[in-house]
Amino acid sequence: MKGIFITFEGPDGSGKTTQIRLLEQHCKEKGYDVVLTREPGGTPISEAIRSLLLDPSHKEMDGVTEALLYAASRAQHVAEKIKPALAKGCIVLCDRFMDSSIAYQGYARGLGDDVRVINEFAVQGTQPDITFFMDLSAAAGKARVAAARDMDRLEQEDLSFHNAVYEGYLQLKEIYSQRYVCIDASRSIEQIAEEIRDRFDNYVLCRNEQE
Amino acid sequence: MKGIFITFEGPDGSGKTTQIRLLEQHCKEKGYDVVLTREPGGTPISEAIRSLLLDPSHKEMDGVTEALLYAASRAQHVAEKIKPALAKGCIVLCDRFMDSSIAYQGYARGLGDDVRVINEFAVQGTQPDITFFMDLSAAAGKARVAAARDMDRLEQEDLSFHNAVYEGYLQLKEIYSQRYVCIDASRSIEQIAEEIRDRFDNYVLCRNEQE
Repeated sequence: MKGIFITFEGPDGSGKTTQIRLLEQHCKEKGYDVVLTREPGGTPISEAIRSLLLDPSHKEMDGVTEALLYAASRAQHVAEKIKPALAKGCIVLCDRFMDSSIAYQGYARGLGDDVRVINEFAVQGTQPDITFFMDLSAAAGKARVAAARDMDRLEQEDLSFHNAVYEGYLQLKEIYSQRYVCIDASRSIEQIAEEIRDRFDNYVLCRNEQE
Repeated sequence: MKGIFITFEGPDGSGKTTQIRLLEQHCKEKGYDVVLTREPGGTPISEAIRSLLLDPSHKEMDGVTEALLYAASRAQHVAEKIKPALAKGCIVLCDRFMDSSIAYQGYARGLGDDVRVINEFAVQGTQPDITFFMDLSAAAGKARVAAARDMDRLEQEDLSFHNAVYEGYLQLKEIYSQRYVCIDASRSIEQIAEEIRDRFDNYVLCRNEQE
């Protein structure tokens, strides 16, 4: 069978990393081949681009350059890792993907819908089959992150930025309504994991029936 | 006054580098502030991206990644060097710009019109005022390059690729007809330089009258 590409999106503190690992475990128990990956990164070239993005001597980097570098890193990740894994029939689980760039750089940093266009070019049609959107308000996400570790003043102050990211995700939910699955992320880890497992199993069932 | 942004485009061997230097000299004689620059490169971040593009260990680089990295390098070049120079009223002369990416990667390598779209995002409206297109058939360009130095077998063989680049430029001439100036590059250096000087002087004259 052709593989299934699943991405996890949502604000910081919404539990993406916990839930992606629980779904990975579920897939393994079902006997599927699973590839767990994350962005930015995933291949040597993507890592080299990531180093360039994080290099502190590059503080004069323009926002447009940054958006194009993230898209370049993603293009390589797709071409070298995600697409071949899907061709082999794997379940690919990715912690953040193109929607993160669109929500953070496009909507919250004000670069606009162009960020969606360059990311659609970057992925060349390899769009997720399912995007689990961990729906949690920016304020609630920040409160969780704050409970887990000390937040510096800057992190405390930029709630309006995180609200803009959240609004961006809500718009993406409309644009890509076919692949978006909204998960109420304010519940317990086990309640959320159960819903995600059910949604995943149901997707596999429906697809097998169609084939 | 607001500066003037001039790019030189055309196949290898069409005399871009020679002519851009002659125009630089003419501008200096007229007392203008001139910035001569070239792509890819132009700023430390652009150079870092260029190193990544040329790193021989990155031979698995996908064509889409490559196109996005060239666009990222260009975005930084525009934001950090070209745009500020234009704001100061300089004449900016650039040896190859966005049209090279569109002709080589978009048309000749088959990535299509998307390459134009990502490059329009990269430059954020900083389009050239004049593009001198050094019009020379791919075959004539190759013959000149061959006369200047030994060509390897690969360079000799890929005439169809260079023909596709040339066809790409002809399409760009239609899309960006307002800024394209076609220069018959089969003539002598002095004849070409004289036409470019006349066209440039005329452009400055018209713009000063409009202001």
